Amino acid sequence: MRELFQKILFENRLLQDGDRVLVAVSGGPDSVALLDLLRDVASDVSIALFAAHLDHGMRAESGDDLAFVEKLCSDWDIPLSVKRVDVPLAARRKGKGLEETAREVRRDCLKAAAREWNCNVIALGHHQGDQAETLVHRLIRGVGPSGLAAMKLRDGEVIRPLLPFSRRQILEYLGNRKLSYVVDQSNFDTRFTRNRIRHEVLPLLESFNPQLEKQLFQLSQMVTEEESYWVEQETAVLDDVILERDEGLWLDAVRLRKVHPALRKRVIRRCLETVRGDQAGLTYAQIVAADELLFSSRPHAELNLMECWVGRNYDKLHIRRQRPSVPEPFCFELNGEGVVEIPGMGRFQAGLADRLAEENRWCVEFDADQVRFPLIVRSFQPGDSFQPAGMKGNKKVKDFFIDRKVDRAWRLRIPLVAAEKIIWVVSMRRSELYRPSACTEKVLKLTFKPEKAFKNLSL
Amino acid sequence: MRELFQKILFENRLLQDGDRVLVAVSGGPDSVALLDLLRDVASDVSIALFAAHLDHGMRAESGDDLAFVEKLCSDWDIPLSVKRVDVPLAARRKGKGLEETAREVRRDCLKAAAREWNCNVIALGHHQGDQAETLVHRLIRGVGPSGLAAMKLRDGEVIRPLLPFSRRQILEYLGNRKLSYVVDQSNFDTRFTRNRIRHEVLPLLESFNPQLEKQLFQLSQMVTEEESYWVEQETAVLDDVILERDEGLWLDAVRLRKVHPALRKRVIRRCLETVRGDQAGLTYAQIVAADELLFSSRPHAELNLMECWVGRNYDKLHIRRQRPSVPEPFCFELNGEGVVEIPGMGRFQAGLADRLAEENRWCVEFDADQVRFPLIVRSFQPGDSFQPAGMKGNKKVKDFFIDRKVDRAWRLRIPLVAAEKIIWVVSMRRSELYRPSACTEKVLKLTFKPEKAFKNLSL
Repeated sequence: MRELFQKILFENRLLQDGDRVLVAVSGGPDSVALLDLLRDVASDVSIALFAAHLDHGMRAESGDDLAFVEKLCSDWDIPLSVKRVDVPLAARRKGKGLEETAREVRRDCLKAAAREWNCNVIALGHHQGDQAETLVHRLIRGVGPSGLAAMKLRDGEVIRPLLPFSRRQILEYLGNRKLSYVVDQSNFDTRFTRNRIRHEVLPLLESFNPQLEKQLFQLSQMVTEEESYWVEQETAVLDDVILERDEGLWLDAVRLRKVHPALRKRVIRRCLETVRGDQAGLTYAQIVAADELLFSSRPHAELNLMECWVGRNYDKLHIRRQRPSVPEPFCFELNGEGVVEIPGMGRFQAGLADRLAEENRWCVEFDADQVRFPLIVRSFQPGDSFQPAGMKGNKKVKDFFIDRKVDRAWRLRIPLVAAEKIIWVVSMRRSELYRPSACTEKVLKLTFKPEKAFKNLSL
Repeated sequence: MRELFQKILFENRLLQDGDRVLVAVSGGPDSVALLDLLRDVASDVSIALFAAHLDHGMRAESGDDLAFVEKLCSDWDIPLSVKRVDVPLAARRKGKGLEETAREVRRDCLKAAAREWNCNVIALGHHQGDQAETLVHRLIRGVGPSGLAAMKLRDGEVIRPLLPFSRRQILEYLGNRKLSYVVDQSNFDTRFTRNRIRHEVLPLLESFNPQLEKQLFQLSQMVTEEESYWVEQETAVLDDVILERDEGLWLDAVRLRKVHPALRKRVIRRCLETVRGDQAGLTYAQIVAADELLFSSRPHAELNLMECWVGRNYDKLHIRRQRPSVPEPFCFELNGEGVVEIPGMGRFQAGLADRLAEENRWCVEFDADQVRFPLIVRSFQPGDSFQPAGMKGNKKVKDFFIDRKVDRAWRLRIPLVAAEKIIWVVSMRRSELYRPSACTEKVLKLTFKPEKAFKNLSL
C-alpha cells in the first residue's frame, strides 16, 4: 500500500517539495492511516505535516477521541490544532440540519487551522467507499453528468490521496502497522442520509456486484477526466461569445446558437454560475429555459431565475444578478441657445451659427427661422413619431428603434429633440424637417457630447 | 397525455409521414397505452401500424396474454404477427441465462416481424421507470459515462416514445380511456436481476427522493445530448489520425498523443469497437492499456486484448483483430544474370550492363568483376551487418532498421542482397563495397520492381 500511495501522490502531483500539509484527523481509521502514510512520505519529500481535530460535541465519546488524537500527534511529533464547536447547537442557531452543519463547521475549522499553521494543502482521508457514497448520494438527490465526478483527488488546496483505496485496504494497512484508531458510533446512526446510504443502499447494490465500489470509483475518475475536457471546450466558447463583462455578462446570441446544444447548455451553466457566484439551487430546468430564450422568436424576453436574471435583446443575451432597473424618464426645456446635461448620457447643446458645417452622428443643423422654440430634450414616449431624413412619410419612433434593433433599456435612454415635432433622434437620425437650404440665413446647430457607454453603443 | 405524447413525437421527429410502424405488444399496460396513443396519431400523420407479440412460454398464462392481444388487435383492426418461442428451452440450448435469452429472442422476433410487414420503425413501450431500472442496472454492473445515456428515444429504427412518462401516468391514461391490460406475473419474480432492481433497489432509493425516476431520466437525457457532442469530437479526431484502414486501423501516434486524454480514450474506444465489431467485453482497463502503449518509451510493444490486438511501431499504432502473423523467412540464390520473384514484395533482377546509369531507390550498380556469385536474395537474419554507402565502418542491419524506424514486420520482408557480404538493403541503402569506378569494365545492375505495399512504404 505504501508504494501505491506514493505512486498516486507522484502521478497526480498531489504534493511538492516545501508544501505545508494540514491533515484532518478525526482519530478514525482513515485519518490515522493517512497521517501515518504521509509521515512516511515526509521522510522523502520535504513537506511539513500539521494536524487538525474537530471536537464536535455530537457524542459523549468525543472527548475520548480528542485524547486519542492528542496522544497520537504528540507521539508522532506533529503539531495539532483543536477546535471545539457544539455542532447540535450551531445547527439549531443556523436552522440547518445536523449533517449539513457538521460539514460546514468541519470545512470552516480546517480553513481556520490551515491559516493558523500557514498550510497550503489540506489532506482528507476519504476513500473509495466514501466516493461510492457520494456518487450514490448525488444520483439520488438528482445530478447532471458533471456531478458524477464526485470527489476529486485534488480540488483546489484539498487533496484526497486515499480515494483510490478501499476501506478493507486501509484496515489491513492499520493491522500490519499495528496502529489503533477510534470508531465513530455516529457512523451507525441511520437517521443520517449518508449513513443510510452506507449501511442500507451500498450493501444492497453490492449484493449484485461485489466490485461495485471499484466500479463507481472508476466511473468518477472517467467523469473527472472528461470534465476537464468540457472545461477546455467551455472556455473556448466563452472567449468567443462573451461581448462584455459589464453589469453581469453580455453574450453574442448568434454565435452561441451555433454551438452544439450539449456544449451550449454547459456554457450557459458556467455563465449562470459566474453571475450567481455559486451553483447552489441552479437547476437543469433553469438552464434549459435560458437556452430556449436564445432561440425564442421574440427579440425581447426575460427570465427571472433564482438569484439570477436573463434577458434577451435581439442578438444579445444579458445575464445579471437582478433585472436591470428601468431608466427614469427625463424631459428638459431650452428656450434659446443653451446646454442641457442628461445624466449618464451626455451633454446637449443648441447654438446659432452662420455657416453650414458637415453633419455627423453627434451634430445636426436646422434652418433656425423654421424651428420654433422651446426645444424639448426628452426620453421616448409611446406614440412618438417623426419624419426620418430621406423619407416622405412619418414613422413611429418605436418601429424605428425596432428596425435598428435598439433594446428596450436604450430606447428609454436615447434623447429625442423636439420642436413642435421631433427633429432629432440623437445619434441615430435627424428629421427631414427644417433642413438648411441655400436661402438659410441662420443655422441652428445641435450637438451632443456623449458619455462613454452611449458613445460605444453601435446604432 | 395525448398532447404531450404528440409533442414528444414531433420535437424528436420520431415519426414521419409514410412510416410503417411495428409496435411490440405484450398486452401489458405500457404496450396497450402505446398502441392506443399511436392509433390516435395515425389519424393525423399518415403512418401504418402493425403489431407483434411474442408467446415466450415462460408462464402458464402466456396463452391468455396471446388471446388478449389477438382480441385487442382485431378490435382495433391492426395486423398482428405472433411468434412462439420456448425461451426456457432456447436458454438451455444456448447455455445462457433466461433474462439474456428472453432479450435476444424478443429482439430477433421483432426484427423478423418488421421484415415481414416491411416496417421501418419499431416502437417499444419503455417508460421512465424502465429507464431508471436500466440506468441503475448499468451503474451496478459497471459502466463509463456513455453508458448512463441508457435507453434512447430514438436508437436506429427503434423508438421509445413513452420514455418521458412515468408508470403512474400510463396507468392513469389507461384508466381514463377505460382500457384493460394483462399483468405479467414474472415481473414479480425477484430471481431476475431486473425485477430485484425494480422491486428492491428503486423503492429504497425512492425512499430518499420520490422524484428519483424523473431525476434519473433527466440525467440520461443530458448524457444522451452530451454523447452526441462527443461523437462529433471523436469523428473529427478519427479523420485526423487514421492513416490507413488496411488490415484493421493504422493511427498516427504523434497526432493522437496531442489529443486531450479524455477524448483520446474515447477515440481509442471507438477504434477498438470498430475493429472488434462490437463493444461487448471491452473494458476501461483495456482502453487505458492501449492509451499507455501510445506513450510507452518502447517503440515496439503490443497488447493482446479480448478479440483485438494493438501494436505500436514507432509513431504508428496498429489496431487489428488478431496479431499479424510473422512473415515467412525467404532465401533465393542466383548464379548469374536472372530474375527472382519474392511473393508479396516484388521482382528482383540482376543483369550485366556496359554503361553506368543513375542509381535510385530501386536500382543500384556494382563493379561486376569484384562481386562474387552466387547472389543471395533473402530476408533479414539476426546478426546481419553491412557497410552502408558513405560510411567507413560496418553497421548492424538491425540498428540500421531501428534508426530508420522500420517496424518489425517490415524488417522481415525487406529483401537483402548478399554476395559474400550484404551489398544492398533493397529500397534503402546499398553497400559502400564494389562501387563502379572509372576503371570498371562491366557493371552488375540490380533492380527491384516493388509491389504496391512495398512501393508505398516510406523509408
